[in-house]
Amino acid sequence: MNKRRFALGFDYGTNSVRALVVDIATGEEVGTSVYGYRAGVDGVIVDPVDPNLARQDPQDYLDGLEISGRGAIEAARANTPGFDADQIIGIGVDTTGSTPMPVDDEGMPLGLDPRFAENPNAMAWLWKDHTSYEEAQAITAKAAKIRPEFLAKCGGAYSSEWFWSKIWHCLKVDPEVFEAAYTWVELADIIPGFLTGTLAPDRLKRSVCAAGHKAMFNDGWSGYPDKDFLAALDPNLARVRESLPDTAYAAGESAGLLTEEWAKRLGLRPNIAVSVGAFDAHMGAVGAGVKEGTLVKIIGTSTCDIAVASKETGLPDVPGVCGIVDGSVLPNHFGLEAGQSAVGDIFNWFVRHCVPGNYEEEAKQRGIDIHQLLTEKAERLKPGESGLMALDWNNGNRTILVDVRLSGLMLGQTLQTKPEEIYRALIEGTAYGAKVIIDRLEEYGVHIDEIVNCGGIAEKNDMLMQIYADVTNRTMRISRSAQTPALGAAMFAAVAAGTENGGYASVEEAQAAMGGLKDKLFTPIPANVETYGQLFAIYKELHDIFGTQNYSANLYHIMKELLDLRDAIRGKNNQDCL
Amino acid sequence: MNKRRFALGFDYGTNSVRALVVDIATGEEVGTSVYGYRAGVDGVIVDPVDPNLARQDPQDYLDGLEISGRGAIEAARANTPGFDADQIIGIGVDTTGSTPMPVDDEGMPLGLDPRFAENPNAMAWLWKDHTSYEEAQAITAKAAKIRPEFLAKCGGAYSSEWFWSKIWHCLKVDPEVFEAAYTWVELADIIPGFLTGTLAPDRLKRSVCAAGHKAMFNDGWSGYPDKDFLAALDPNLARVRESLPDTAYAAGESAGLLTEEWAKRLGLRPNIAVSVGAFDAHMGAVGAGVKEGTLVKIIGTSTCDIAVASKETGLPDVPGVCGIVDGSVLPNHFGLEAGQSAVGDIFNWFVRHCVPGNYEEEAKQRGIDIHQLLTEKAERLKPGESGLMALDWNNGNRTILVDVRLSGLMLGQTLQTKPEEIYRALIEGTAYGAKVIIDRLEEYGVHIDEIVNCGGIAEKNDMLMQIYADVTNRTMRISRSAQTPALGAAMFAAVAAGTENGGYASVEEAQAAMGGLKDKLFTPIPANVETYGQLFAIYKELHDIFGTQNYSANLYHIMKELLDLRDAIRGKNNQDCL
Repeated sequence: MNKRRFALGFDYGTNSVRALVVDIATGEEVGTSVYGYRAGVDGVIVDPVDPNLARQDPQDYLDGLEISGRGAIEAARANTPGFDADQIIGIGVDTTGSTPMPVDDEGMPLGLDPRFAENPNAMAWLWKDHTSYEEAQAITAKAAKIRPEFLAKCGGAYSSEWFWSKIWHCLKVDPEVFEAAYTWVELADIIPGFLTGTLAPDRLKRSVCAAGHKAMFNDGWSGYPDKDFLAALDPNLARVRESLPDTAYAAGESAGLLTEEWAKRLGLRPNIAVSVGAFDAHMGAVGAGVKEGTLVKIIGTSTCDIAVASKETGLPDVPGVCGIVDGSVLPNHFGLEAGQSAVGDIFNWFVRHCVPGNYEEEAKQRGIDIHQLLTEKAERLKPGESGLMALDWNNGNRTILVDVRLSGLMLGQTLQTKPEEIYRALIEGTAYGAKVIIDRLEEYGVHIDEIVNCGGIAEKNDMLMQIYADVTNRTMRISRSAQTPALGAAMFAAVAAGTENGGYASVEEAQAAMGGLKDKLFTPIPANVETYGQLFAIYKELHDIFGTQNYSANLYHIMKELLDLRDAIRGKNNQDCL
Repeated sequence: MNKRRFALGFDYGTNSVRALVVDIATGEEVGTSVYGYRAGVDGVIVDPVDPNLARQDPQDYLDGLEISGRGAIEAARANTPGFDADQIIGIGVDTTGSTPMPVDDEGMPLGLDPRFAENPNAMAWLWKDHTSYEEAQAITAKAAKIRPEFLAKCGGAYSSEWFWSKIWHCLKVDPEVFEAAYTWVELADIIPGFLTGTLAPDRLKRSVCAAGHKAMFNDGWSGYPDKDFLAALDPNLARVRESLPDTAYAAGESAGLLTEEWAKRLGLRPNIAVSVGAFDAHMGAVGAGVKEGTLVKIIGTSTCDIAVASKETGLPDVPGVCGIVDGSVLPNHFGLEAGQSAVGDIFNWFVRHCVPGNYEEEAKQRGIDIHQLLTEKAERLKPGESGLMALDWNNGNRTILVDVRLSGLMLGQTLQTKPEEIYRALIEGTAYGAKVIIDRLEEYGVHIDEIVNCGGIAEKNDMLMQIYADVTNRTMRISRSAQTPALGAAMFAAVAAGTENGGYASVEEAQAAMGGLKDKLFTPIPANVETYGQLFAIYKELHDIFGTQNYSANLYHIMKELLDLRDAIRGKNNQDCL
């Protein structure tokens, strides 16, 4: 019997970190464990006054690293006869992002310093922190004027969710923290830094995925934005530029070797390879089998859409698409990242704040989840039957508008509107948002033939998948793994380990061995495709008139069209019954 | 000791009928009783497929007449030493409208005929039945072409809630009922008809209030619309015109004398005066003290706004105001009717379908109503703090757009939006809708100095009253009586009885003796007036772009302005806390 080999992937999410032990020959997931962060509300430090603020305590990351890692290994041991932690040949890490944090000159997060223990500005600035929306606008405006090439690679607008906006906002609101910081490091970089003892700023290998997608790093202009540009924003930002390297690395390259200390804390062999980090969506896409023509949608609280385009065919800049970065997903491909700022978050908000007690009671009595109950009821509705239309902007719009200063909209309510109708309209709103992204990619030459979906919502909610199929008029597939980001991280761990240690020579090889799709698929239903075509036209008009500056119209027809469609469909339903 | 004299008012609402016994010297309400209709859902016959349908069973009206009338008299007897039903000198009746029903050649409702017992088209077509929206559009279009003067008096558009739309729709969908009907009679006319034995079409005194506001009756063109016009819609409608009289009567005139039969059923003296009927809002306005410069708002499931303008000063037609009818409210005044299609109905819809279980639980544990709980929570919010904006069109828009093919809109939701914020936004939406009406009246020379509010919502919800004061920048007063329509009906009963029977010679005299306001008043708070001025501008832009055909704009600024305002106000709140 051959000796089996395993890889360990860590997936740092918004509320918890998951560790996953994977058999690298088969992709079998033999052990997993999740650690929920302790700080704030479900791990997110919030501000009762400012809804834009979202921070995290770095201590949660380190506690989670050890506890989830040990837990996954423990689980693997319990599940798998003959399993031995020494068979783990590498570690990979993916994280949320842009989630940068200020660090001292040894690379240690200021948030771990007792001096700053109570200061949210010294903590990690979570991806969904939107406090710096004014800075984002100013960066966009300045770049449009003096460095238009910077904007072209990030979709035409720099976001408040990203690296430089956050650092600049910290400089403005908390000069003390800004001064105490030697540099700022992404979560995706600091975890490999801890594991390999390369925290020191001159040793740390930063991820091209994080740098390229969120910090305007590009080989076209020698790495991070130049000092002149940053100084034009604020002279103090030029100093931060000096603390940053000129090189960034793709995942799959080795960030270094596991230290004795962390080997001990995790119960692993020391000196195994640790991959350079990347964002959860990117590694998730790899875990789900992203390739040319295949868009991967990671559907969670928000959605990330990842596609790749061959470097050979070349690629124009795609306006409104968050980033186009060489090698950020697969080697020799441009990685494209798009996304929706809130998807599951909208459904959860609705369930928490807008579903009446008798529904909760019914779900409880039947022993099902409230989402399940609403889905059951919503499933009985036909497209257009509710007369409702929602814009999915409750947390702003990431792609293609790149604008956090947008908000939700629900239209078409009557005195008969029921919760399941609103629930379905919210799901449909996110499907229309997904279609806007696909349309934009195709418009610029990135063809999407197949869509692979990952995440709990895609796995559990068949109605949502069918709506997505019908709205986008494309077949929906689902990744075999329930945790593609951690699986992708494990793939990169196997690549970082290399063939000499029993790993893989390329990401494609790792994907072929370790990835796969579920058999179940969702094909578009022609009648629904037609109705959703009409509804999408309405969505698009609202999208453009509320979300862009240059589209004027009268909307007199909107409510009437929705009511006409509703009545036509109800009338048809009625005839069907006779 | 003088012998006291009383009047009996009946108020036919959407779900029930109320009877009220009033001391005509003081306005003291000595006995009341409510009868809830039995048919359908809370008295409204609905259609599971067509949400536009709303009918009522005439049997409910008759049962309610007897039972509530007897109940009120019983209560008066119990409450009032020395009370004697013989002291009741007259009866007044107000009803919802336009609520017409088909009747046979003796004036008997077809809905009471066992042949039609199960046919909703033979029942009364409740004011909020919107099945005939296509007919309303066709009537508006035809009148615009060949009888523009008809439209001018009803605000520029004929509504699906009104008399001719409903009759025409019946003709189209149920020719059998249409053929069986000799004529159609408003609820406001048929109750006095029953009480006085004048049901026969040639004897029935029809109300100018109902005819003028809903059936295009006007002395300027000899009464109801001419046969040529109706024939141009459908030749069969001309036959209905033949069944209608040339004269209509103001409330306060006698419809006839109480029959022996109904005297017996109610426990009253026969041959007392029964006033010509009118709509609930109009009699309610009289009960609340309407006069020149005073707008009366009756706030219930929907809202009716009633104003009067002196005939001497003259009055231009006011576009979008439902009706301008000579003598429909007060003698020698034009009566103006405006209104909002849903107010309390929106709040009730929200509470029924959108408030989570833990709120219901909290209200229950504290022994308060869910509206009360939401109001408590919403009261702590400042104007603009939620970032939300609602259009109050969940049941269409009656004034000034006169369009049932509109629907609700809620804008500005984030992932933090709470139920009380939505609740407050819905209330604010109705306040903005109220301001649009006032602005329109003033624009056409009907000055509104004072607003008197009636109805349970106005009495119970101080927050709503304050919001209305702040949004309209006018002092809000509340009618002393909790049931102004029934009180108004009693005033008209006293006028119909006349001085010879111990009643009054004029409506003004009856108002002076029997009416009054509560001491509590709500004055505008300058800071709130300012913020609501900004918010109203946003409301008005959405109102115009979704509700009118000729206004185009880009709405890019809308969500941003709401978020900016929200953040400015939250920042200020925060500073207040420091």
